[in-house]
Amino acid sequence: MRLSPEQVKSVLKNLRFRSGLITAVVCDHRTKEVLMVAHQNREALTRTLTEGRMYFWSREKKRLWLKGESSGHFQLPVRMLIDCDGDAVLYYVKQLGGACHEGYRSCFHRELRDGEVKLIGRKIFDPSEVYKSRNPKYP
Amino acid sequence: MRLSPEQVKSVLKNLRFRSGLITAVVCDHRTKEVLMVAHQNREALTRTLTEGRMYFWSREKKRLWLKGESSGHFQLPVRMLIDCDGDAVLYYVKQLGGACHEGYRSCFHRELRDGEVKLIGRKIFDPSEVYKSRNPKYP
Repeated sequence: MRLSPEQVKSVLKNLRFRSGLITAVVCDHRTKEVLMVAHQNREALTRTLTEGRMYFWSREKKRLWLKGESSGHFQLPVRMLIDCDGDAVLYYVKQLGGACHEGYRSCFHRELRDGEVKLIGRKIFDPSEVYKSRNPKYP
Repeated sequence: MRLSPEQVKSVLKNLRFRSGLITAVVCDHRTKEVLMVAHQNREALTRTLTEGRMYFWSREKKRLWLKGESSGHFQLPVRMLIDCDGDAVLYYVKQLGGACHEGYRSCFHRELRDGEVKLIGRKIFDPSEVYKSRNPKYP
């Protein structure tokens, strides 16, 4: 997915940013599994569509965030859908490695079962190894 | 899904509300299709889990919102997952009728194709009929 600046401009007309952000749901393009929920400002959305890698706006760090910048676990957008209100977008992506910084494929690795929150995910990588090797500042 | 108040209290400990809200992604429990994205405050989440019907907080109308209250298109939660940050939840539901007030099964009925936003959904009900018959205030 590589759009021209003109095409992005036309996509942006369909979106309604609230306090500068839209909600982005990210799913695996093969399994349809929901991998994570994050937010995008106009720049994150524009770079996602023009560069073909998922970018978000980190509300915690208040900065643009290339998904995978520390871990190498990039997300490559394959499909993008827009909801009726234009304030949420849905991406189907090729997920390299895992989406969750805790080592899981999906950030949704806890489920309510029999009235209790239980871990249902299985770790597919060791975060301390992945982040240490890419980012020496990781504790 | 019918939790006791004690069980809900324990679920709430796993959640992190931002400005009083968490993001809720709603999927069809059979097809896994993403139906909509909305928000819940503590009361909406509590009523969802204790009553077995999806409630949200309407940011537009600033009030509690029982999904289907006007249309009869209720959502019955089957599964609930929580993300690593605790600020997003994922529900798999039985969707009666359609999730979208515009008459579609899913609110994500527009997709980016060949650089343009295109309608991909098919209407499954006529909103003017559905809302008129249930709510005389509908225009």
